[in-house]
Amino acid sequence: MEFLVNYAWLWGLLGLVLAFFIYKYVMSFPPGDKVMVEIMERIHAGAMVFLKREYKIISVFIVVVFVLLYMGLDHKMTSVAFLAGAICSLMAGVFGMQAATLSNARTAEAAKTHGQATALTVAFFGGSVMGLSVASLGLLGLGVFFMLFAGTDPGVINGFAMGASSIALFARVGGGIFTKTADVGSDLVGKVEAGIPEDDPRNPGVTADNVGDNVGDIAGMGADLFESYVGSVVAAIAIGATMGLGVEGMAMKWMMLPMLFIIVGLASSVIGIGLFNMLKNMSPQSALSNGLYIAGVLFIASSYFVVKTITADMTPEYLQSLGIRGPLGPFWAVLMGIVAGMLIGAVTEYYTARKPIRRIAEASQTGSATTIISGFAVGLESVALPVFFIAMAIWLSYLSCGLYGIAIAGVGMLGTVGMTMSVDSYGPISDNAGGIAEQAHMPPHVREITDGLDAVGNTTAAIGKGFAIGSAALTALAMFAAVSQTMKTYPGFENFALDLTEAHVITGLFLGALIPCLLAAMTMTAVGEAAFDMINEIRRQFREIPGIMAGTTPPDTNSCVDIATTAALKRMILPGIAAVISPVLVGIFIGPEALGGFLAGATLTGVILGLLMANAGGAWDNAKKYIEQGNFGGKGSDAHKAGVVGDTVGDPFKDTSGPAMNILIKLMSVVSLVTLPAIIAIYHMIYG
Amino acid sequence: MEFLVNYAWLWGLLGLVLAFFIYKYVMSFPPGDKVMVEIMERIHAGAMVFLKREYKIISVFIVVVFVLLYMGLDHKMTSVAFLAGAICSLMAGVFGMQAATLSNARTAEAAKTHGQATALTVAFFGGSVMGLSVASLGLLGLGVFFMLFAGTDPGVINGFAMGASSIALFARVGGGIFTKTADVGSDLVGKVEAGIPEDDPRNPGVTADNVGDNVGDIAGMGADLFESYVGSVVAAIAIGATMGLGVEGMAMKWMMLPMLFIIVGLASSVIGIGLFNMLKNMSPQSALSNGLYIAGVLFIASSYFVVKTITADMTPEYLQSLGIRGPLGPFWAVLMGIVAGMLIGAVTEYYTARKPIRRIAEASQTGSATTIISGFAVGLESVALPVFFIAMAIWLSYLSCGLYGIAIAGVGMLGTVGMTMSVDSYGPISDNAGGIAEQAHMPPHVREITDGLDAVGNTTAAIGKGFAIGSAALTALAMFAAVSQTMKTYPGFENFALDLTEAHVITGLFLGALIPCLLAAMTMTAVGEAAFDMINEIRRQFREIPGIMAGTTPPDTNSCVDIATTAALKRMILPGIAAVISPVLVGIFIGPEALGGFLAGATLTGVILGLLMANAGGAWDNAKKYIEQGNFGGKGSDAHKAGVVGDTVGDPFKDTSGPAMNILIKLMSVVSLVTLPAIIAIYHMIYG
Repeated sequence: MEFLVNYAWLWGLLGLVLAFFIYKYVMSFPPGDKVMVEIMERIHAGAMVFLKREYKIISVFIVVVFVLLYMGLDHKMTSVAFLAGAICSLMAGVFGMQAATLSNARTAEAAKTHGQATALTVAFFGGSVMGLSVASLGLLGLGVFFMLFAGTDPGVINGFAMGASSIALFARVGGGIFTKTADVGSDLVGKVEAGIPEDDPRNPGVTADNVGDNVGDIAGMGADLFESYVGSVVAAIAIGATMGLGVEGMAMKWMMLPMLFIIVGLASSVIGIGLFNMLKNMSPQSALSNGLYIAGVLFIASSYFVVKTITADMTPEYLQSLGIRGPLGPFWAVLMGIVAGMLIGAVTEYYTARKPIRRIAEASQTGSATTIISGFAVGLESVALPVFFIAMAIWLSYLSCGLYGIAIAGVGMLGTVGMTMSVDSYGPISDNAGGIAEQAHMPPHVREITDGLDAVGNTTAAIGKGFAIGSAALTALAMFAAVSQTMKTYPGFENFALDLTEAHVITGLFLGALIPCLLAAMTMTAVGEAAFDMINEIRRQFREIPGIMAGTTPPDTNSCVDIATTAALKRMILPGIAAVISPVLVGIFIGPEALGGFLAGATLTGVILGLLMANAGGAWDNAKKYIEQGNFGGKGSDAHKAGVVGDTVGDPFKDTSGPAMNILIKLMSVVSLVTLPAIIAIYHMIYG
Repeated sequence: MEFLVNYAWLWGLLGLVLAFFIYKYVMSFPPGDKVMVEIMERIHAGAMVFLKREYKIISVFIVVVFVLLYMGLDHKMTSVAFLAGAICSLMAGVFGMQAATLSNARTAEAAKTHGQATALTVAFFGGSVMGLSVASLGLLGLGVFFMLFAGTDPGVINGFAMGASSIALFARVGGGIFTKTADVGSDLVGKVEAGIPEDDPRNPGVTADNVGDNVGDIAGMGADLFESYVGSVVAAIAIGATMGLGVEGMAMKWMMLPMLFIIVGLASSVIGIGLFNMLKNMSPQSALSNGLYIAGVLFIASSYFVVKTITADMTPEYLQSLGIRGPLGPFWAVLMGIVAGMLIGAVTEYYTARKPIRRIAEASQTGSATTIISGFAVGLESVALPVFFIAMAIWLSYLSCGLYGIAIAGVGMLGTVGMTMSVDSYGPISDNAGGIAEQAHMPPHVREITDGLDAVGNTTAAIGKGFAIGSAALTALAMFAAVSQTMKTYPGFENFALDLTEAHVITGLFLGALIPCLLAAMTMTAVGEAAFDMINEIRRQFREIPGIMAGTTPPDTNSCVDIATTAALKRMILPGIAAVISPVLVGIFIGPEALGGFLAGATLTGVILGLLMANAGGAWDNAKKYIEQGNFGGKGSDAHKAGVVGDTVGDPFKDTSGPAMNILIKLMSVVSLVTLPAIIAIYHMIYG
């Protein structure tokens, strides 16, 4: 077992090499004719320009935080780990986006010449580059720092998670603003005002819209899951480090366990991806689901053996003293995480694709006001079961192995991130393929195939979002547990407790709750205002360049990409800084108890708002699609118009503000974990 | 001082007598011509029928709970106190509604014959019957039980708060569903489809709409504030009872203090109301604000002397051992409550009447989707400052006198409820007066005056809502503190703590958070579906009775009142039962720690959702009004249409689901406080 962990970085590296070969394999498919290549190149270039500009701004932030950490913390290597975490997240983004934005035309071409099965393969393998990059880079980075510091100074590893979190915030918030600015702007002018279909090449916003799908759902989601993945492992290591109880070598075992889980998780994902060629002749929905099941079952089985081996020489008394119920305790926690993730996914699917969307579609008959009211009610209702499952996962994993169990449940939920993220990335590739088919005027059967792939992609995207929030909740709670456990290791804080009947804790709880509200308000306003600029630009082009509508002059798509990029980058800075600074300020000025309450309040409110907004948005989207299928009057009816309003309102809900919550709650916890020593020192300086 | 408290019930009775004379005074104004009287009678009858039917259902619930409490608790008198609390709340509702629904026509007539000043007086004094009834009945009931049980068994008094809470839930939820079913239904068909103005006598839903204003904003708000008022006093008494520290007679002093505050608070309100005749020639806004200021300043001044007298013979050491900072400690907590209440009111006014509504109105130019997005963003943003003020009030009042301080801050915020509630009730009376002016075709200058009064009423209503949530938060937290302090008095629970790093507490926290979401979803769905029935009924009448639109046949307004009544009563039961049972279940099955987390999670989420929905709703309402004043195209423009959608969405937000949150969080806390002994007993039976 130790052998496996010592070479964890090597398994990560191997995963990356595999991702590279898959990338080459996908690139071996032809991208189609000149027009298709041109469109693909435009999307690719737009995405890369966005990433480059985004990374330039992020790098300033990263350098500043690096310097602050270097100066403020005693363990200088923490700041190096921070840098490494940030770089790994950035690299995963570049690799995944490179593959995805060059797979879209290839998917469309495969649909044209080979049919659905090949198109499905190309889209899936194109997405799996992102999936494998996320899992492998995480393992590589964690492996290196684990090897170097687990034995001497495990706190250093926390820095890696903070680096990942910092990138994730910017990628999610910036990406979210970009994608919805482009989507809302081009839809409102193109579809509603000019009456041209979605993805019509005459719409100046079409490229920005296509770029946005990649920026939001691939780069944003990737950074999000990368953060959860790394964060849950780091939290488990941090808690594990406090579990030695003086028995030689035992703390190391608990620290190794999460690393082992993600090693077997990566292997399970690789096998699942490798077997996909055998599944490609099924319906896209079954192929993807079965891929997920294969990876999941392999992961569960191998986790069982991992846990059995690790706890083999531990006495029942020792386990009990740690609050671990029997030698299989950690296995139950892993299982709890997987089951909770699947249940949350199923509930999300129910609320965004089943009966509730018909209820919204029905309400659309009496106008857009009732569409909004019923959709919001569906969103509120949809919060209940996922939160219940999260609560049960917390409770049961705690019963099975204490606070450590909560972190392990998080690791379990994310163990097969290589596969989950592959399925998530598949969606935008299919969506883009459809866009290219439309813009390049490809034969109808191509659009039919890509539409079929895209429809499945919408469902996987909705499930992915539920999953992302669930994992964010567990990761944030695990981090929160790590913060409080670490707190107890400071001199004078041996009896540190976060008593809810203590006013500082309650004060912190309320202060924490207002941060997600503010972040959601800021990001939503950002989309609203940027979309306004985008609308004016598209209107201007239609007005001033008469050749566009006639199809004789191409629209200036670059200006729209530029508007979305600038808006996204400008608007992501303030929320980002607020998220990083607020826990530090609360900790310093109101004290560590308030900080604990603050994190709990922010996590709780973030989870609630995140689920509410993501699910309401998804439900409105699919209610509109349900009407478009011919229900309640179909396309062009009053119900459809109301449905479009719901869909537009849902856009920033589900793709900007909702997902931003995931990141926020994780980032605030990890910032607290890393800066805790400095916070305590300054607090003591002020209050003595 | 003791003399004052011993006769607290007498002061309450005197307040009631005063309310009766004010009622007689208002009734001495003429109600106008036959048409006006007829409309008034219809509204009056509709309101009374609703109350009667509502009370019939509630009484079943009350009797069941009474029997359960009687059988389940050792202190049988607690169930009697419960009954008394329920009856006092019901009586306040009847008295207030009786006065309000007979003041509307009198206000309109006064506007016609005497002008604005007299109309303002009639509307205000009509509302003050509700204000004085709430304050006096609260004092009367609390006074009786205090006199009988404070010295021997103060826990009995908790029952009074639970009775008040139970009624409040039904009054708020039922009233909220009634008012918005009527409003949304009659607006969508009348204003949007048939193109007739609001309050047009040809609209079959007009009476239901007018009744709804009273049912929601007077009976609902009255029960809400009655509950907060009683609840904060009861929590302060419960905490005070634990503060004796073995010093003879000291616990009694801390228990007396909140009673003294509400006695001087009632006196301050009475003086404020009495002086209103001197203010009536000011603008309505200034007159009402100055009335509030006068009562507030008197209350602060008299609280200062009350605190000085009570703590006069306490040693600094004794005070310090209780965490009370100096002999003026409780005074600072009272002041903190008042200041926080005023600040929350000011923020609410800003978000629902200033720059943010212009932002929403501007966004309405690009359609209803952007109206909704910007309004929701305003709602989210508006949560931040009030939550910040609540957090600061908690922190500072705790610093000034411990957990007791939080309860005292709540008492401070509600001390002048007699005045606050009078101002709140003034709004619907003016609104109704305008409706009567319209339906009775009164001269334009009448409508002008009533519109002016109504506009101020909208602002006071918005502030009142912010205030109601703020006071609910403090009351719920005070109750929560009382629960945990009481917990520590049980054998085996001396060291009871709610450690947030303990999984049961976190599990409870998450479970608690899902309840407000579910309640909001249920109430919102109820309005959506009941409005749908109402719409169909109004459409049917327009279709089948051609004489309605010609003005020759009166519409059947009773059927609409009946639809709203039935829907409200049917739909309030499930949420009501869920709110009462859920804390008991959590406490019994997951344990008292989980119950503590549960209450904290529910309070936090309830406050966030309550503020979000109330303020977003208020902002949409006023954004529409802002457009109607001629901005961005004025009435009939596309921006106006979008504004109407926002207003309609905001209706259930601000008047049904939002206010339901206030009650929910208080009710769950008080149920826990009262049933705690039974919960602990059953928990021990199950888990040993």
